[in-house]
Amino acid sequence: MIIIMKSGIGDVEIDDICRRVTEMGYAPHIIRGEFKTIVAAVGEERGRPDLRLLEAVETVESVMPVQQPFKLASREVRQEPSEVRVNGVIIGGKPIVVMAGPCSVESEAQVLEVADRVKESGARILRGGAFKPRTSPYAFQVELVAEYSDILQIGARNIQNFTLLRRVGEMGKPVLLKRGMATSIQEFLLSAEYILAAGNPSVILCERGIRTFETTTRFTLDLNAVPVLKKLSHLPVFVDPSHGTGHWDLVAPMAKGAVACGADGLIIEVHPKPEEALSDGPQSLKPAKFAQLMRELRPVAEAVGRSL
Amino acid sequence: MIIIMKSGIGDVEIDDICRRVTEMGYAPHIIRGEFKTIVAAVGEERGRPDLRLLEAVETVESVMPVQQPFKLASREVRQEPSEVRVNGVIIGGKPIVVMAGPCSVESEAQVLEVADRVKESGARILRGGAFKPRTSPYAFQVELVAEYSDILQIGARNIQNFTLLRRVGEMGKPVLLKRGMATSIQEFLLSAEYILAAGNPSVILCERGIRTFETTTRFTLDLNAVPVLKKLSHLPVFVDPSHGTGHWDLVAPMAKGAVACGADGLIIEVHPKPEEALSDGPQSLKPAKFAQLMRELRPVAEAVGRSL
Amino acid sequence: MIIIMKSGIGDVEIDDICRRVTEMGYAPHIIRGEFKTIVAAVGEERGRPDLRLLEAVETVESVMPVQQPFKLASREVRQEPSEVRVNGVIIGGKPIVVMAGPCSVESEAQVLEVADRVKESGARILRGGAFKPRTSPYAFQVELVAEYSDILQIGARNIQNFTLLRRVGEMGKPVLLKRGMATSIQEFLLSAEYILAAGNPSVILCERGIRTFETTTRFTLDLNAVPVLKKLSHLPVFVDPSHGTGHWDLVAPMAKGAVACGADGLIIEVHPKPEEALSDGPQSLKPAKFAQLMRELRPVAEAVGRSL
Amino acid sequence: MIIIMKSGIGDVEIDDICRRVTEMGYAPHIIRGEFKTIVAAVGEERGRPDLRLLEAVETVESVMPVQQPFKLASREVRQEPSEVRVNGVIIGGKPIVVMAGPCSVESEAQVLEVADRVKESGARILRGGAFKPRTSPYAFQVELVAEYSDILQIGARNIQNFTLLRRVGEMGKPVLLKRGMATSIQEFLLSAEYILAAGNPSVILCERGIRTFETTTRFTLDLNAVPVLKKLSHLPVFVDPSHGTGHWDLVAPMAKGAVACGADGLIIEVHPKPEEALSDGPQSLKPAKFAQLMRELRPVAEAVGRSL
Repeated sequence: MIIIMKSGIGDVEIDDICRRVTEMGYAPHIIRGEFKTIVAAVGEERGRPDLRLLEAVETVESVMPVQQPFKLASREVRQEPSEVRVNGVIIGGKPIVVMAGPCSVESEAQVLEVADRVKESGARILRGGAFKPRTSPYAFQVELVAEYSDILQIGARNIQNFTLLRRVGEMGKPVLLKRGMATSIQEFLLSAEYILAAGNPSVILCERGIRTFETTTRFTLDLNAVPVLKKLSHLPVFVDPSHGTGHWDLVAPMAKGAVACGADGLIIEVHPKPEEALSDGPQSLKPAKFAQLMRELRPVAEAVGRSL
Repeated sequence: MIIIMKSGIGDVEIDDICRRVTEMGYAPHIIRGEFKTIVAAVGEERGRPDLRLLEAVETVESVMPVQQPFKLASREVRQEPSEVRVNGVIIGGKPIVVMAGPCSVESEAQVLEVADRVKESGARILRGGAFKPRTSPYAFQVELVAEYSDILQIGARNIQNFTLLRRVGEMGKPVLLKRGMATSIQEFLLSAEYILAAGNPSVILCERGIRTFETTTRFTLDLNAVPVLKKLSHLPVFVDPSHGTGHWDLVAPMAKGAVACGADGLIIEVHPKPEEALSDGPQSLKPAKFAQLMRELRPVAEAVGRSL
Repeated sequence: MIIIMKSGIGDVEIDDICRRVTEMGYAPHIIRGEFKTIVAAVGEERGRPDLRLLEAVETVESVMPVQQPFKLASREVRQEPSEVRVNGVIIGGKPIVVMAGPCSVESEAQVLEVADRVKESGARILRGGAFKPRTSPYAFQVELVAEYSDILQIGARNIQNFTLLRRVGEMGKPVLLKRGMATSIQEFLLSAEYILAAGNPSVILCERGIRTFETTTRFTLDLNAVPVLKKLSHLPVFVDPSHGTGHWDLVAPMAKGAVACGADGLIIEVHPKPEEALSDGPQSLKPAKFAQLMRELRPVAEAVGRSL
Repeated sequence: MIIIMKSGIGDVEIDDICRRVTEMGYAPHIIRGEFKTIVAAVGEERGRPDLRLLEAVETVESVMPVQQPFKLASREVRQEPSEVRVNGVIIGGKPIVVMAGPCSVESEAQVLEVADRVKESGARILRGGAFKPRTSPYAFQVELVAEYSDILQIGARNIQNFTLLRRVGEMGKPVLLKRGMATSIQEFLLSAEYILAAGNPSVILCERGIRTFETTTRFTLDLNAVPVLKKLSHLPVFVDPSHGTGHWDLVAPMAKGAVACGADGLIIEVHPKPEEALSDGPQSLKPAKFAQLMRELRPVAEAVGRSL
């Protein structure tokens, strides 16, 4: 951490900060600039007090991190990409993995019908929302869901529910972690870090749109997040163009864009009758359009050295 | 709702939309413009299917709401401001009500000390975070908290946890509902509507900062929300300048601004030793600074016809 | 336009609004809903007063447009895509067109060297900033630039300089119109409309990043804008991944994503020594990296039915 | 500046960076952390190459500024607040200064009528837009405007037109510098720095709303900017609640909020017939409402130790 002192601060105050830094377990290094003095605090931050608390001291202007706040999720700890296995499907390898299905499970018949259709088109994993915030007073019925599904999804609204992240980290199941609509990429990776730190290495990151001033799309699907996440982290990265754009006719182009810029997989909403769906109808593809998208995606995947 | 047809759409397709509108329980009115035809769907929306599903129909360009999606929370249903009573304190009347205390409860001694000091300075309600997302895998231990506190707080992260909103609506306790950092004002009032609709009229709205591109403040405390909420709704409106700005030295000016633009109350973090706080130290006031703020707030409250 | 009356407004006030609407040259249609009355104002808006002024009337809650504010730029007026010709190069056809070169022209030698290298790699148009806001007190030395270049660029900062747009519209040269960092897609197309309305059909739209809360990228390159613009407008759409991301190592993946989601062309900064560039060095590619990107782009273009 | 090296970088590369830092005229200091090495570059940045260019070097992860990029505008250079004199009116002193008038000058009669009315109510300076981007192909007819007005206004769209800033800085007139809708506070002060550096000390900063996801207001008037600017800079700070909110009925509460949180002045649009205004009618106050606002503002000003 770099502690920037207010200008005009004298030696006594700088010594006081150095003393506090030392007490907190770090080694202070003073650098005197033309106008400002900074104190670099060197040392492993894990298990030591948070140096940003020094911002509450009146002589300190600000405290700036030099390192990313995540470690296990970073490329620095692990250079090669991680693979996550889900029931025999490998995520993060050469093949692009597509998860498809309805946003909300409405009936067994509906799910089975969609499952058949999307599997036929090449989807490898069935998606189907069950316990969403809207159906449970608890954010996530963790154990129950874990028993009946192959992947646990942490929705955008729980991205900073750190106890849930830790709990999910203690379970063996792969976790799909969706970026919140106001979550920065740094916060996103910090949330992944909680799961990894609890012992679960099977984390899949998923970009699903951020909130901006633009209103022609429901959210602004941030494809920049794909190469940024691949640069900073070894974890596989998915994209959800259905939630991210909110319009079925934008799903296909953004799905292709996602694959071309490096995504490892896609989550796509498919519903047999979108105009009667219980939720998110306007962003769902009909099975026939999904089949067409899968045909069009294959050459894009191959163009960037992947398969589908 | 106004259903805007794509341009070049013929009578057969317009009739089809009118038929769907009628089947959904609304009366359709066709208006043919120079370039576009629109279908106005008239009728109470409560208890009928959501007309926005028609956006999934290919002949429809978009569906635009004419009415706000909330009703019980609106000024149209209740012209005079609501008052919420908390243990004898009236919120939403002439006096500005200040809640103060530490962000996280660290010990009984800490809370009691702060309680004494802020009460002495004029705070009417003690705040102290107990079950935050970071301390429980469930978003909110609702019953337990309800038993031991006078106000239930729905934090920014649960603002769209609709089942929690309904559950809290079924309990008798006053609810402090905090706007999420990416929650629009319309969504905010829709969340309040869930609580009101479940039978609980005691809802306090609280602005606490939204996420924008600006980084000198932790969030952008949106004081515009105060007059906008007062215009659209009869519910009392609070402001949290501590979380909203993230810096203790911005708390006093923004607290004054909040009162001047019409807030009914404030939530302010106070901690005896901010530089050692378990959370949010840099935004906490020391008790002496809080006392000074309270003295400075009084004339501002009086200048806008309130008291403190 | 749809004029939404405040609730509780009586017939006298509604009649007053209808009278004003008629005086402004439109035909009013009254629709009485369960709670609200709306007045639909039908008629061509071009050349008539702006109905949004009625928002200044106290009985009016709001005025909502039903039609997009642009017409010549829209798909409704012209279904097939427009092509823009620049010195024999066709923009908007099957081939993806790449413009490349330095951000600022530093010397003749520098430009000639880069020109040779990027042409060799397949770029069809040379870019080189000359009169930027930073070099002239006038936003754009229009005539001078027009005499010496094949395309006029309206930078992000002049996107709403309507007189400049009109002036450029009166000149014969093709115009590259860059979206501002806080420009909505609707405003963007409205700016294009000014140029088209002045008689110049040769407008190329260019997405170059919007400002959001995310800080790992300089801007958030909004690739969603590509399919949205293609859906709403017939004009060709370019993407500038250099300015949009601000980091040279994100240029290649985002360029591929842009082509895959439907862009007609790319603008890419190339500089022989980025670490010595007068401006925007960190986002410039060296000629060798640009050559590699061009090789990798070709299969992506072909995968979506284009060529390079 | 702090240059953060990529992890795993060896001594040769660190030496190379130190050599470049030295060549650029700074003194390098190496600090080796647990995981990362940083190089602090010490020295006056004015007149030396921009160290951020080193981000183009592959061994560098990022370059972080320690100092604000502005100096003359900062509190560090001048502790006491600056005063700007306009025709005998002192801006930045104890009295709050209100500028009022129409957004666009429509006729001499209109301006004179409004001038009389707002002067009577206590406004000290008349505002009236003349050469806006919409009326001139050049961003600002600088000399002409300078001859006929007492204050030069740099509108939000020219906030980063650095040559215009410098030109205006060379003229003697006071400058009202309006924050752009996507301008960060740091960029805002950097723009002020250009004017100050050119020799003109009479700069007034004006907050006028930033673009966010919220749509109930036209922009999000960012009152946090007031105490932040007062903390970082000695320049006077104005607020424009008319443009900032876009709704006449939000002007009064936000004007009071602005004064309470420390603004030195206000800019308010007043128009005798807002529903017929050539521009921005919905956000203009009628003269009677303006008079009422001025009466209500006085006690707020006094409550925070100011006068009106």
